Amino acid sequence: MIVEEARYQRAFEEAVATRRDLHRHPELGLTEFRTAAIVATRLRELGLEVRLGREVMDEASRVGVPSAAELRAAYERALAEGADPALLRAFEGGFTGVVGTLRGAQAGPVVALRVDMDALPIREDASTGHPPAREGFVSAHDGIMHACGHDTHVAMGLGVAEVLAAARSRIHGSVKLIFQPAEEGGRGAVPMVRAGVVDDVDCFVAIHVGSDGESGTLYPVVTGHLASSKLDVRFRGRAAHAGGRPEEGRNALLAAAQATLGLYAISRHHAGRSRVNVGVLRAGSGRNVIPDEAFCMLEVRGDSEEIADYMLHRAEAVIRGAAAAAEVEVEIETMGRTTTADSDSALAEAIAHAAAGVPSVRVDLRPHQAPGSEDATYFMRRVQERGGLAAYMVVGSGTGGGHHTRTFDIDESTFKGAITVLCEAILSLGAAPPEAGRRRAN
Amino acid sequence: MIVEEARYQRAFEEAVATRRDLHRHPELGLTEFRTAAIVATRLRELGLEVRLGREVMDEASRVGVPSAAELRAAYERALAEGADPALLRAFEGGFTGVVGTLRGAQAGPVVALRVDMDALPIREDASTGHPPAREGFVSAHDGIMHACGHDTHVAMGLGVAEVLAAARSRIHGSVKLIFQPAEEGGRGAVPMVRAGVVDDVDCFVAIHVGSDGESGTLYPVVTGHLASSKLDVRFRGRAAHAGGRPEEGRNALLAAAQATLGLYAISRHHAGRSRVNVGVLRAGSGRNVIPDEAFCMLEVRGDSEEIADYMLHRAEAVIRGAAAAAEVEVEIETMGRTTTADSDSALAEAIAHAAAGVPSVRVDLRPHQAPGSEDATYFMRRVQERGGLAAYMVVGSGTGGGHHTRTFDIDESTFKGAITVLCEAILSLGAAPPEAGRRRAN
Amino acid sequence: MIVEEARYQRAFEEAVATRRDLHRHPELGLTEFRTAAIVATRLRELGLEVRLGREVMDEASRVGVPSAAELRAAYERALAEGADPALLRAFEGGFTGVVGTLRGAQAGPVVALRVDMDALPIREDASTGHPPAREGFVSAHDGIMHACGHDTHVAMGLGVAEVLAAARSRIHGSVKLIFQPAEEGGRGAVPMVRAGVVDDVDCFVAIHVGSDGESGTLYPVVTGHLASSKLDVRFRGRAAHAGGRPEEGRNALLAAAQATLGLYAISRHHAGRSRVNVGVLRAGSGRNVIPDEAFCMLEVRGDSEEIADYMLHRAEAVIRGAAAAAEVEVEIETMGRTTTADSDSALAEAIAHAAAGVPSVRVDLRPHQAPGSEDATYFMRRVQERGGLAAYMVVGSGTGGGHHTRTFDIDESTFKGAITVLCEAILSLGAAPPEAGRRRAN
Amino acid sequence: MIVEEARYQRAFEEAVATRRDLHRHPELGLTEFRTAAIVATRLRELGLEVRLGREVMDEASRVGVPSAAELRAAYERALAEGADPALLRAFEGGFTGVVGTLRGAQAGPVVALRVDMDALPIREDASTGHPPAREGFVSAHDGIMHACGHDTHVAMGLGVAEVLAAARSRIHGSVKLIFQPAEEGGRGAVPMVRAGVVDDVDCFVAIHVGSDGESGTLYPVVTGHLASSKLDVRFRGRAAHAGGRPEEGRNALLAAAQATLGLYAISRHHAGRSRVNVGVLRAGSGRNVIPDEAFCMLEVRGDSEEIADYMLHRAEAVIRGAAAAAEVEVEIETMGRTTTADSDSALAEAIAHAAAGVPSVRVDLRPHQAPGSEDATYFMRRVQERGGLAAYMVVGSGTGGGHHTRTFDIDESTFKGAITVLCEAILSLGAAPPEAGRRRAN
Repeated sequence: MIVEEARYQRAFEEAVATRRDLHRHPELGLTEFRTAAIVATRLRELGLEVRLGREVMDEASRVGVPSAAELRAAYERALAEGADPALLRAFEGGFTGVVGTLRGAQAGPVVALRVDMDALPIREDASTGHPPAREGFVSAHDGIMHACGHDTHVAMGLGVAEVLAAARSRIHGSVKLIFQPAEEGGRGAVPMVRAGVVDDVDCFVAIHVGSDGESGTLYPVVTGHLASSKLDVRFRGRAAHAGGRPEEGRNALLAAAQATLGLYAISRHHAGRSRVNVGVLRAGSGRNVIPDEAFCMLEVRGDSEEIADYMLHRAEAVIRGAAAAAEVEVEIETMGRTTTADSDSALAEAIAHAAAGVPSVRVDLRPHQAPGSEDATYFMRRVQERGGLAAYMVVGSGTGGGHHTRTFDIDESTFKGAITVLCEAILSLGAAPPEAGRRRAN
Repeated sequence: MIVEEARYQRAFEEAVATRRDLHRHPELGLTEFRTAAIVATRLRELGLEVRLGREVMDEASRVGVPSAAELRAAYERALAEGADPALLRAFEGGFTGVVGTLRGAQAGPVVALRVDMDALPIREDASTGHPPAREGFVSAHDGIMHACGHDTHVAMGLGVAEVLAAARSRIHGSVKLIFQPAEEGGRGAVPMVRAGVVDDVDCFVAIHVGSDGESGTLYPVVTGHLASSKLDVRFRGRAAHAGGRPEEGRNALLAAAQATLGLYAISRHHAGRSRVNVGVLRAGSGRNVIPDEAFCMLEVRGDSEEIADYMLHRAEAVIRGAAAAAEVEVEIETMGRTTTADSDSALAEAIAHAAAGVPSVRVDLRPHQAPGSEDATYFMRRVQERGGLAAYMVVGSGTGGGHHTRTFDIDESTFKGAITVLCEAILSLGAAPPEAGRRRAN
Repeated sequence: MIVEEARYQRAFEEAVATRRDLHRHPELGLTEFRTAAIVATRLRELGLEVRLGREVMDEASRVGVPSAAELRAAYERALAEGADPALLRAFEGGFTGVVGTLRGAQAGPVVALRVDMDALPIREDASTGHPPAREGFVSAHDGIMHACGHDTHVAMGLGVAEVLAAARSRIHGSVKLIFQPAEEGGRGAVPMVRAGVVDDVDCFVAIHVGSDGESGTLYPVVTGHLASSKLDVRFRGRAAHAGGRPEEGRNALLAAAQATLGLYAISRHHAGRSRVNVGVLRAGSGRNVIPDEAFCMLEVRGDSEEIADYMLHRAEAVIRGAAAAAEVEVEIETMGRTTTADSDSALAEAIAHAAAGVPSVRVDLRPHQAPGSEDATYFMRRVQERGGLAAYMVVGSGTGGGHHTRTFDIDESTFKGAITVLCEAILSLGAAPPEAGRRRAN
Repeated sequence: MIVEEARYQRAFEEAVATRRDLHRHPELGLTEFRTAAIVATRLRELGLEVRLGREVMDEASRVGVPSAAELRAAYERALAEGADPALLRAFEGGFTGVVGTLRGAQAGPVVALRVDMDALPIREDASTGHPPAREGFVSAHDGIMHACGHDTHVAMGLGVAEVLAAARSRIHGSVKLIFQPAEEGGRGAVPMVRAGVVDDVDCFVAIHVGSDGESGTLYPVVTGHLASSKLDVRFRGRAAHAGGRPEEGRNALLAAAQATLGLYAISRHHAGRSRVNVGVLRAGSGRNVIPDEAFCMLEVRGDSEEIADYMLHRAEAVIRGAAAAAEVEVEIETMGRTTTADSDSALAEAIAHAAAGVPSVRVDLRPHQAPGSEDATYFMRRVQERGGLAAYMVVGSGTGGGHHTRTFDIDESTFKGAITVLCEAILSLGAAPPEAGRRRAN
């Protein structure tokens, strides 16, 4: 190992503490004000160059931005919970991205690690059977929960920062630590990519804890991320007294029901997985009123951009057709997108090589099935299209309930191996970049 | 009575024979070649002025015309069954209307009687429990049946012609006997109205046997005919192998299913009865092929033209929306229409007056609910809008199964009373037309 | 007039004040704690015998009772707004009915007046164009509004109590003033009927202000109240990750969409108006989760109990079939019912007679179309089935927006005529009851 | 090569003639009376032991049997076209399977070749652009076409019989030639498997021409056959006059439309391809009648038995739920099934080895994607579960339109290579069976 074990042990212990604090204060996508402020503060303390907010997020590329009221409430809560007001201003309006850069002593490539920071609109299990509740760090934000482990990603990212900041003399090239907001819904990556955050990156790694992986095992060859589009749909009709003047109504709920059936009935694509889901439908205001408004949240997915585009095209036709049939207005808004991307085996192998000497860690180079969609894929595609290498690595960490459930929990002991392997790999990659990464050095 | 009873008895006996011959040889709407030829031949024998085919039917107003093959097959059948080839030529292409005029000795108004001639695509019950089968005049045309009694209307119409031809000296004004094709589906009346057939009519009566009326009772005040539109809809998509290339298909059957649900879900109108029915749906060719064709036969109805128009407007939106959702082509064809009309009470009362001396006949002047839709209403509206009087009279005639069933049957003995009352009323009306009919005399 | 005009003028002025206070403090059905306490207090002050809560409402007959939390919150609000705590206890749990009885000096029949007290979940227009806002009595309870005029009914009912309490010497028999909760949704009448509230009533009158009636005109012959059932439906399926394990889900939203289409597609009844409406649908929790819960609020209506029962039967089949198709659980809860009832013309004529001498009031005895459904019909049916007379009277009172809109408003000046006619009629009815009411006197 | 080239040339020429005769006289599944009679006659002439009809088809396992009328009509046609009446009797009722066995001079394993014989309900292109039409062997059976190449399979199977019958001295073990009816719809294989036809088989090969393979190339490793179930569904409701008594109807068409939407909306399975298709829907009899009957032909498919079973289970729930919602009766009949199966590589390699010396033939051992479903898989599974080897081989043969189209055509020149390789492989397999086949010799 390039760095001594005791250093990793300290970083691990701090990561556990950080994770528990974040777990207790979860924040939804694009409202990670407190989280981002903690990240930025810590990175500055460690001496990294830090860029924030609009510097690292392109405004025009944002979709699915929360309402002004939601942004405001989360902002106030972060303030109330002690976030640095000066930093917060940089994030105002939902620009909650942070990028820290550590320039090494020697020339070499740019190696980036990307973690995501947002939580989910899920009410966490508060029973003592659920470890975070038992240990006292259950969510203090009602109805919001780190049910996908992004708290652990931030904690590990800061752990890596800590170790590498102290090992700057051994860094070749530079290290970029990317803290992305709003992975859920596929909203945070594109604005950071469009802001050029990875335009100089030679080797890129994104991580995700995986409750279906084995604790102590890392899987740097993840495949099968689904391309997806997330849509919000609003039907607007005309209300009428359902008993007295039914013919005067234009029924938005009926349009939404027709659209729902039509969406689920879309012919699937022969070339791979194709998915559609209407996850939320809210319509109408009173029992005896022809409903004049309906709102749907839906998504389509596919094993490739082509399939996802086919599903999207068909979905739009179905929605507009249902609106036309009911003679109601309709508005379709894209709330997020994800794409597909494959991990480069050269990079995965370099990670495996770096992990060789690390105790109690195993690297499994076989393809690991991605659980769903991920917008880290936009970073990966950007890096690869400029000639760099990219990998998406699952940190096996099974414990509690599945992802996106009220009892989701992970095995904190896995942080240590992950931080260690990431640091060792980053240092190795700088010193001896794999083929594709070699051509460009800062 | 103006005419002696024995004359009516003879006309009645002939009417029964005529009816049984027609019942045995039923013909669908616009293919009543044999029927119309029999009618025209008989009217000429009786000395009426006879107009035929295109003389009494406006070509541009026709909808729901059978295919050339269907027209041809029915034509050949009529020839084979001995219809006069010279007459048939006048009906070629489905112009099967006949109008006979009897000019009276004295001046007076124009009084018209309208009967319809077409049968239904129903397979008649051939068991001995069914009187026409027992008596040997069950339909000889497989799958076609006089299941609504139009055979009896023609028979009574010819009975009236016979009596009045012999009573010409007592006719004031003139009498018009209108034999209309294609009442089923609402296709025959409009072309005759547009050809001007009732433009000179002062008093107009249409008749219909009614299995829900009492035998021996006439109901000259029928109300509640529903306005309606009959539509044929063809969806055309794209076939594809359902297992191998589902995404390449554009599913016409799915469009038809969506349309069906949307149609039945149309908000009904507060102002009266509103109906919609998809009576027939045929789609697809093979189990494992995404269906590329679907065909629907549907109708909308309403208590008023306004309601029927509302239903029609919504139906078209639903159908086009469903097609758009499935990305298939659609073609909507109007196959028939009916409207509403009310009987004039002055005319109904005149009929009741004429019936006063007729034995075993009762006239019920209370409003009688129409069983469904009727295109005689177009004649009625035309006569009324020109200042004439119109009535729709049900001839109570209950016996066998309901209208449009395989066991429909009527009480032939009612012909006599009906012929008698019609003749007596026509003669009386000419001599002493009610108020509204008085203003114009030929 | 039996009572002098000045007395009516004072009652009118108080009614306006009462109405404005109630308008400012609207309460939803079965939570009319403050309103009922004001009513009970006032009736007691006036010397009426007062029965409350469970004395006048049968617990087992209640449906659509708000949740414990909603009942609690409304109760606390009433307390905070100064309602008498001792009285409130009688209403606890949503037993908010009040009945006051005034026994006359002479023998005679029992004459009852019924008014309703509940408001609607509508946010009142707060702009100065809306008179209650301009005059300072716009709703102080956010999202709740007296948008159907029940505040005016209570005010008029208390006005009648006031006048009659001072005129006891002229009362023959006794007068019952029934203050009913929860007319909206059809929930309040049945428990009062089942508690026997009208079992001794000879003449029964229910009133309703009508924005489509003319100010100054009373319509005591209202017809066409639709029988109805109000249903809440909950579908419960199984959540699953829509991208990762779609087959593990059981889609409650899909069941609700299928049910919605099936409900609107129910064949309407030939015998009269038949209505169905899914007014509210809420389903699902997240875009990428197969929805495991769906909630629908719906209603069916018909021109007769038979039609409404047919619609209800079909609705239940459709809902259960949709649940079975989606393999989800379903629960159907009846939230309210209304029935049909006709006003007795003898009673209506008696009212007209009493109104003859009242200045600036007109009584229109022609049938007046009911705007929708009403559960006062249960009182009417009960009184009529025991041999009494019943009438439903609309107090014409047009001004602002339609019923159930944010800008609903009425013409307060109409209170005076209504109070006057009601008092004069009640006194007359006692002195000279119409035929049917004569048989029983207290 | 074991047999001289001239022998293959003669067999090839006869195969072309046979194919053209069969192409001109196509027969639907379970009505292959003429085809089976030709096969049996020829096999007997060649000296094979021939088993027929019920000897090789288990009656209880049959599904999707044509109606008695259809069977009768096809039988009469075969008689009229000169099929041997004595043989035909063995096939009566649709038992149209034939198995010929050739016992070799030496001991050895049982090697089987299976071909299918049925045609499709497709009207063949009769234009001169279509080679069978140009060459004079276009289908003489209107609306029936060998659009999937089973005519060529029979021709090649008889070609193999001819060569091997003349080479009996070189056969080790025995050769079974299986001529299966009704592959389309998945109806013919299971009854033959249940009759024990392959219970003694050590090596089994099924063939299929493939318009997407290259002419001259054989693909003995076909993967991805979809498991499937084919269902016919009949909904039976109650007719009613749509205008007059809509509430009396129970709408079977509506049930079918609801079922259609529900079927297409079934959540797809994460573990592989899942398909559903409603290929045919026919419902209703008249425009103005609530439809009392609806008939659907549908299928579900999956990449595994588990997935297909999941789809089948969901489909049945959807269909029964839709029927319950509409209160109509429903009957679901299984019309056919297919399963999955993998080719054994040892057998594929043996075929490749035997093909090594054959001129102008190439064997491609890479996995070749199956185009859809196949019931040969039941034979394969049976052979494999008893320890034998099985392979499904595509004979690349691209020319005209795709499978199941009106212009499907194949390259006849490929017959020669296929017959040659099959004969050489069968002879080799007998002499030197691959490992798994060795254990059992006759």
